[in-house]
Amino acid sequence: MNIEIIAFDADDTLWDNEPLFQSIEKELCTMLTEYGDMEHISSTLFDIEMNNLELYGYGAKAFTLSMIETALRVSGNKISADKIALIIEKGKYLLNMPIQLLHGVEEALSSFSKKYKLVVATKGDLLDQERKLVRSGLAKYFDHVEIMPDKTEKEYRKLVSALNTQPENILMVGNSLKSDIYPPLSIGMYAAYVPYHTMWKHEVADENIVNDKFYKVESLSSLSSLIIR
Amino acid sequence: MNIEIIAFDADDTLWDNEPLFQSIEKELCTMLTEYGDMEHISSTLFDIEMNNLELYGYGAKAFTLSMIETALRVSGNKISADKIALIIEKGKYLLNMPIQLLHGVEEALSSFSKKYKLVVATKGDLLDQERKLVRSGLAKYFDHVEIMPDKTEKEYRKLVSALNTQPENILMVGNSLKSDIYPPLSIGMYAAYVPYHTMWKHEVADENIVNDKFYKVESLSSLSSLIIR
Repeated sequence: MNIEIIAFDADDTLWDNEPLFQSIEKELCTMLTEYGDMEHISSTLFDIEMNNLELYGYGAKAFTLSMIETALRVSGNKISADKIALIIEKGKYLLNMPIQLLHGVEEALSSFSKKYKLVVATKGDLLDQERKLVRSGLAKYFDHVEIMPDKTEKEYRKLVSALNTQPENILMVGNSLKSDIYPPLSIGMYAAYVPYHTMWKHEVADENIVNDKFYKVESLSSLSSLIIR
Repeated sequence: MNIEIIAFDADDTLWDNEPLFQSIEKELCTMLTEYGDMEHISSTLFDIEMNNLELYGYGAKAFTLSMIETALRVSGNKISADKIALIIEKGKYLLNMPIQLLHGVEEALSSFSKKYKLVVATKGDLLDQERKLVRSGLAKYFDHVEIMPDKTEKEYRKLVSALNTQPENILMVGNSLKSDIYPPLSIGMYAAYVPYHTMWKHEVADENIVNDKFYKVESLSSLSSLIIR
């Protein structure tokens, strides 16, 4: 193993994220209950999000706009302005949400940072992700932050080149097989999968990997015990 | 002069942008005319944009959310859902707007690219700016694209470091004194100011620069005649 750089996904790898989006989604469903049950509202929101993905990308602003569109659609454009105002407020709450680090993350990063160069490689909204990193208190551990519009092989190739290194010198760590594991392995990077208890439907993927550059661990602490010798 | 890299702002430096935002703003004012005159709606929108800037950052999604908030505020939450739906549509139009290159840009880039490494250094929304660059047909001229959450000295220092170079080896080119000229000059970069006919109020700044690393030119073609010998 000649790993020199460890790249970390952020949301649901370093800190909680998806549960906050899901709790806002639940609030939206409750607010719109006169227009349909939770399942109907949720699946409309998901369809609209997928439909807007190419145009809006990921993140809380995109999510807010898709929530507004959902309210308009399920109500047949009958939704009140008061409720639209509430959705805007919910979106702002998401952008300011408290950052709750996952257990053991800071200790693990501190230990990794003694041996490796650490970077953040996350998709989502540029400003929002940078603000979250600052609020997390973890910024000091990272030499480089790469906010990616998406996480396909193309963006990982760009990351490798931005870091002036080779794929086999980077280990990518994250909770999404689809975004953090498959594309890095495909281009020859190492990848460590750290499952998180909740997964956005869009990120769900099959887990069936045979690759000697693949690790599956329970937490960043376990990864740290595994690769720091 | 030991310039090796030229960094270009994108909106209103490579292609038209501000007039499109202003025409959408005009449409918003017309749509909201029952709640106040153009001046009132416009200044409310500007206040809301400034208020949201730290949270939302720059770009069309932020602008769309601020337009919705403006409609809610000026109407005292009486705005109809139909009009909110129209605002969402206007926002999507901005995200898909046709890219109109400024006169002579492609020829100038082609000529610069023979002697210098070219990069894009723009603020705004990550996905949106990358999509605009692709739609512009100019992506092939650039070795690197840096989308910055803001354009202050801090972000320019990060750019210099990302490019593995020194400030005095980069020339920044753009239409905003506040974003493209003052901060680069402050950290020792070269800067070329190419005024554009329309300027967002937030970007307006005094033009009074004495610095031997400063150029003011009429167009990228003039810059090309000036520095390519």
